[in-house]
Amino acid sequence: RQMRVKELSRDGRGHTSVLVFDVDDEVLDVLRAHARRTGIRAAHFTAFGAFQSATLAYFDWKTKEYVEIPVDEQVEVTSLVGDVGTQDGEPVVHAHCVLGRRDGSPIAGHLLEGRVRPTLELFLDAHDGELTRAVDEESGLPLIQ
Amino acid sequence: RQMRVKELSRDGRGHTSVLVFDVDDEVLDVLRAHARRTGIRAAHFTAFGAFQSATLAYFDWKTKEYVEIPVDEQVEVTSLVGDVGTQDGEPVVHAHCVLGRRDGSPIAGHLLEGRVRPTLELFLDAHDGELTRAVDEESGLPLIQ
Amino acid sequence: RQMRVKELSRDGRGHTSVLVFDVDDEVLDVLRAHARRTGIRAAHFTAFGAFQSATLAYFDWKTKEYVEIPVDEQVEVTSLVGDVGTQDGEPVVHAHCVLGRRDGSPIAGHLLEGRVRPTLELFLDAHDGELTRAVDEESGLPLIQ
Repeated sequence: RQMRVKELSRDGRGHTSVLVFDVDDEVLDVLRAHARRTGIRAAHFTAFGAFQSATLAYFDWKTKEYVEIPVDEQVEVTSLVGDVGTQDGEPVVHAHCVLGRRDGSPIAGHLLEGRVRPTLELFLDAHDGELTRAVDEESGLPLIQ
Repeated sequence: RQMRVKELSRDGRGHTSVLVFDVDDEVLDVLRAHARRTGIRAAHFTAFGAFQSATLAYFDWKTKEYVEIPVDEQVEVTSLVGDVGTQDGEPVVHAHCVLGRRDGSPIAGHLLEGRVRPTLELFLDAHDGELTRAVDEESGLPLIQ
Repeated sequence: RQMRVKELSRDGRGHTSVLVFDVDDEVLDVLRAHARRTGIRAAHFTAFGAFQSATLAYFDWKTKEYVEIPVDEQVEVTSLVGDVGTQDGEPVVHAHCVLGRRDGSPIAGHLLEGRVRPTLELFLDAHDGELTRAVDEESGLPLIQ
């Protein structure tokens, strides 16, 4: 099995779909591949489900580098919000999430990697046009232009 | 008083509404009743407000059962995301949330029950078509087909 | 520099835009000014990015007052959801958020103030019509009518 897509609505300027991820899918990889395949260059999304493992990150403003936060346990994805744009013509995904552990205590940050189990339901609003990113001098981050 | 609905937009393929919940409303019950009454068979939503109490849950991948996380205090609903589909023809709601306590420390998980106080503002995007769920053999969960 | 707006789609009943905030922007101020300038009287949004500092709050049901939760550090904005309505004819913003610290531990609550650094990406769905708020007698809060 693999991630499946169901289109929910479409008009002249965009469309809304639900992406249903499967066990072992890595969210960012699968989403970038979907954007490449379908030509999406501007979208935003909300998702929830569960990960078997993930890597989050915190942006350290002093060093201008991401500090990694490894998550090596099964967690609920209680909130995953993000967008799809392009950088140098290629699709890029920017997403932040809040994960819930067995006792309900959460972990939150920028998403670097999330491996699905058993499912993730992602609602994607794709728009015409393009969200272009380029590296910002002050932060060193690829910001929307 | 009770939950009130205001339609915000409508086109040929769906509509967006805001549902304003009232004191003592149980979110999932009220949302299922709304879906049944209005014939919604595919929707997704984002909400925020406050609960007087709630029951969250964590899905244990080893036992394939939900572990309950009781929340017996007034909390901010800082994020509530979910969807509406059908299972055996009846409306089902799947939602995850992040709750905030007095000191800002959160609790996160799958929502089993949430009792509103004083309000919850829920933005619902209803779509034509249907999100059908059926029990998945591996996880035992009702996944989107 | 300052907050920039890019319209993503528009139909007869509303429009979707992305608002890209810049360093030092205070989210609620900038969003109210945007609503006033563009005549938005009903909208909802989802956002993520980072704050250099923020003030969250918890509504105490017994005293009917907000308890402030100061956040005096750089944090990831892992979820920010809210809406725009009007009260006495003026735009009002109601938003809740979940912030992530360096170690991934979150802080959650009602947003009173959030100062952006380096960016915040906010997807705004503006609707025709109006979300009118008025003070509710029981809670003392401005609820949607």
